Amino acid sequence: MTLAFASSSLADLRVDGARLWQSLMDLARIGGTEKGGVCRLALTDLDRQGRDLFVRWATEAGCEVRVDAIGNIFARRSGRDNSLPAVMTGSHIDTQPTGGKFDGNYGVLAGLEVLRTLNDAGVQTDAPLELAVWTNEEGSRFVPVMMGSGVYAGAFTLEHALSQQDRDGVSVQQALRGIGYDGKAAVPPAQPGGVGAYFEAHIEQGPVLEAADTVIGVVTAALGQRWYDIVLTGVEAHAGPTPMPLRRDALLAASELVLAVNQIALAHAPNARGTVGWMDVFPNSRNVIPGRVRMTVDLRAADDATLSAMDTALRAAADAAAAARGVTAQVEQVVYFPPQPFAPALVQSVREGAQALSMSAMDVVSGAGHDAVYLARVAPAAMIFVPCKDGISHNEIEDARPEHLEAGCNVLLRAMLAQAGVAA
Amino acid sequence: MTLAFASSSLADLRVDGARLWQSLMDLARIGGTEKGGVCRLALTDLDRQGRDLFVRWATEAGCEVRVDAIGNIFARRSGRDNSLPAVMTGSHIDTQPTGGKFDGNYGVLAGLEVLRTLNDAGVQTDAPLELAVWTNEEGSRFVPVMMGSGVYAGAFTLEHALSQQDRDGVSVQQALRGIGYDGKAAVPPAQPGGVGAYFEAHIEQGPVLEAADTVIGVVTAALGQRWYDIVLTGVEAHAGPTPMPLRRDALLAASELVLAVNQIALAHAPNARGTVGWMDVFPNSRNVIPGRVRMTVDLRAADDATLSAMDTALRAAADAAAAARGVTAQVEQVVYFPPQPFAPALVQSVREGAQALSMSAMDVVSGAGHDAVYLARVAPAAMIFVPCKDGISHNEIEDARPEHLEAGCNVLLRAMLAQAGVAA
Repeated sequence: MTLAFASSSLADLRVDGARLWQSLMDLARIGGTEKGGVCRLALTDLDRQGRDLFVRWATEAGCEVRVDAIGNIFARRSGRDNSLPAVMTGSHIDTQPTGGKFDGNYGVLAGLEVLRTLNDAGVQTDAPLELAVWTNEEGSRFVPVMMGSGVYAGAFTLEHALSQQDRDGVSVQQALRGIGYDGKAAVPPAQPGGVGAYFEAHIEQGPVLEAADTVIGVVTAALGQRWYDIVLTGVEAHAGPTPMPLRRDALLAASELVLAVNQIALAHAPNARGTVGWMDVFPNSRNVIPGRVRMTVDLRAADDATLSAMDTALRAAADAAAAARGVTAQVEQVVYFPPQPFAPALVQSVREGAQALSMSAMDVVSGAGHDAVYLARVAPAAMIFVPCKDGISHNEIEDARPEHLEAGCNVLLRAMLAQAGVAA
Repeated sequence: MTLAFASSSLADLRVDGARLWQSLMDLARIGGTEKGGVCRLALTDLDRQGRDLFVRWATEAGCEVRVDAIGNIFARRSGRDNSLPAVMTGSHIDTQPTGGKFDGNYGVLAGLEVLRTLNDAGVQTDAPLELAVWTNEEGSRFVPVMMGSGVYAGAFTLEHALSQQDRDGVSVQQALRGIGYDGKAAVPPAQPGGVGAYFEAHIEQGPVLEAADTVIGVVTAALGQRWYDIVLTGVEAHAGPTPMPLRRDALLAASELVLAVNQIALAHAPNARGTVGWMDVFPNSRNVIPGRVRMTVDLRAADDATLSAMDTALRAAADAAAAARGVTAQVEQVVYFPPQPFAPALVQSVREGAQALSMSAMDVVSGAGHDAVYLARVAPAAMIFVPCKDGISHNEIEDARPEHLEAGCNVLLRAMLAQAGVAA
């Protein structure tokens, strides 16, 4: 399909980085915070203002806009043959309460910049293009997270999503009506096969690209996740009168398990992750030996065989740590997200796009969830990462460099053209 | 001094175990709880009722009763030569909010039973005997703990103690007046040398005697204590996108330090203790790498050289654990109680008392604080431990066996007679 670039004019086609940056800054004013971040929670009036701005821009770019029943927005640019499956891109514009300007917004506005660039150059693709804005990716106001793409991909039902309530008892359905984005289009779509390819550009939200001084992350897969709740039960006793050999200290077992979780992840380098993020010590008193520790474990890996091996190792480590300290261990898995490999052909389009533009690039995995992970269940999908400052996201100081955002957008342009096809 | 028992009638003298048990049960009714424990907080009206009962019993036993300015009660039984330093015993009758029948109360009523036994047998000691009830040992309502004995021993001033307030703003001075125990006797006493010996019988509040199936604990020393506040500071980051080598996980450093504290105590077996009882993880979120952990460390040892070596090892372990994980460690010592050896001659009286009565006995240390630890600063002192069920104390289910309580009381009787002297 790279034959499409035989035309030198197409090979030289570049997005307008300044226009992309300006659009990001314009959108960031809606819900902009004093510290330079954005607070634009899903389905609030600020979200409506952001959606309205997007719809205006998409309409001005000649797109046909439709909204589905969970509030996902689709802006369609016709192709030469509209019976072909669409080549889609997108992301989300809702933010965390202390969110930044780029998380999600970049993927949506990079897609818009691709369409504007094609308009300016008068390029018509073979397949139609679609630009999606997914509802409530962040999950800050309503759970589950990645709600719009989840319903679209059939991960859970429309009815389930619409009935969820925020802390004030407002349902998703009520909130959608309130902002006028309770659309008519069916969801899940009648023909999932109608999407030929889905690309999503995103800031990395991690430190890998920056540490490697690399501009483009070619995302090959999203890590699978297993989350656990663990309870270690010993016997609380006075720290003074209780000699060391007569103790059943739950925190000693917990500490060994924390270190074991780290070792389990290191044993499956470079992609596996193992984290104890939450711990509760009982009775949590300075001179009382802890009688109970509750803790979470978060294991991630790129393939299910690895994730299963890590699960086995975790359970063995919990038993061993408990037995060594005379305590008992309860291990319960509470969440499972399967690993999601991305489509090799699309990943290759991203890789080739970076190569053709002589950009530094490396294969990476996505450690976090994204709308693309759900889309990958119903269509070929891939992602493009660009660096963000210090790997920080979900924070008002989230930052990214204009030239990196432009670079990722140029790779998106080429990858979409490669998949959509352009007559030479 | 064992020559005093050359008289066969004195050698055969035994306390009345049933009377001791009945007195314990009678006192336990004041503030008794449904679960079989006692809630009789210092300087409350229940404390007054308990004190009044003690004063009545002591008066009936022929004692002269006086109260000092911090509310300590002293019941004095004259000796043959009242110019001799008194041989004293005692403990406390205030309890924890969820306290038991024996903690403190046993030491007071064992002393009372000794006096009653001597009365019944018509024995006059050379030195006078004194039975002390120390104010506010538990510290549940007013801090500092061991308040009455602390003022008596000059550990802090009377004015400091009197000005302390409970959560309702009531001062110790107001509370003493309220229950009529703001006494006139000077404290600290004009002549600390006026106490020739101090013995305190107490339930062990630990599991050592029970585990060794031994009745009498010959307490050779009270452990010194060093308490620390430690802060480990790393960098919080998302558990998904952050590869293992790029983390600065404060909980990994904390976990290594918890295990190191245990090793440090084991390296100084059998008497050293090392405990992490309290831990706070930040931000304590399931999928965020912990950026900061605050924790306490409690180190105890029987001598200062050991305690200092443990301090050095702790600081080295904190630095090593922090450096290995790319985090920083702050270690601050917040409490220091010096180790307190008991007087060898008095310890020997306890040991010989158990031997003479053919009781199982072993040398032990006191891991917790007791009034005797302060008394040891101003007079020769020693303690007698008896087992408590499962080592449990500060709990309504605290329990002890009548025959063990009686045995400890018989040892107390012989040790006091050995120190006070009795004409053959």
